[in-house]
Amino acid sequence: MQEISELKYDQNGLIPAIILDVETGEVLMMAYMNEQSLRATIETGKTHFWSRSRQKYWMKGEESGHTQEVKEIFIDCDKDTLLVKVKQTGAACHEGYRTCFFRRLTPTGQWETVGQKLFDPKEVYKKK
Amino acid sequence: MQEISELKYDQNGLIPAIILDVETGEVLMMAYMNEQSLRATIETGKTHFWSRSRQKYWMKGEESGHTQEVKEIFIDCDKDTLLVKVKQTGAACHEGYRTCFFRRLTPTGQWETVGQKLFDPKEVYKKK
Repeated sequence: MQEISELKYDQNGLIPAIILDVETGEVLMMAYMNEQSLRATIETGKTHFWSRSRQKYWMKGEESGHTQEVKEIFIDCDKDTLLVKVKQTGAACHEGYRTCFFRRLTPTGQWETVGQKLFDPKEVYKKK
Repeated sequence: MQEISELKYDQNGLIPAIILDVETGEVLMMAYMNEQSLRATIETGKTHFWSRSRQKYWMKGEESGHTQEVKEIFIDCDKDTLLVKVKQTGAACHEGYRTCFFRRLTPTGQWETVGQKLFDPKEVYKKK
């Protein structure tokens, strides 16, 4: 996998990854990968990320079961952004929506919720 | 537009914006906005960005004519990433492809070009 090292990671060693649902065509989420999580994504066929807020390596769905099966990986012209097409189990958003982009800007400058809630986060992410 | 100020910009005052083609459903590109470029995007209905490499405010298509007409703007759950649905004139990528994500990872770890070139960058971006 020599070409993988040609990617342009940012000053923190991260590269943004846009996650697209191959079945619905929806943009599900955006998260950040480092070299380790990209390698794990490719090797396991499930998306792995680096959490900036928790400073932690994680597999999508490790707690919720809402994993993402990788179908295709694209890179942009500048080689600094990934686009990963996945088959999503359940819902991508930790708030219970299919996609994290469930709020739309209204003409009056408000964010209105347009996505449909598919699960209750309190049920899925139980305190341990 | 009071809600706009609730966005989480990064330490450089930027927020990533994923640009989606409303007609084809393709992810066209990802670029960064600051408060000024987001405001201009909303007010003019054409996408505006902040170029990190050129440290410059720009309107998509200002040189090529390949502008993006804004149809809808979404925000993700963490309010740190935008998704903008646009009507694309011409092609989004400065290398001449419809989308910047024209290279796909092969099973052997290479990036193969799968997008179709729609214009010759040398013709479109003429030296002044």
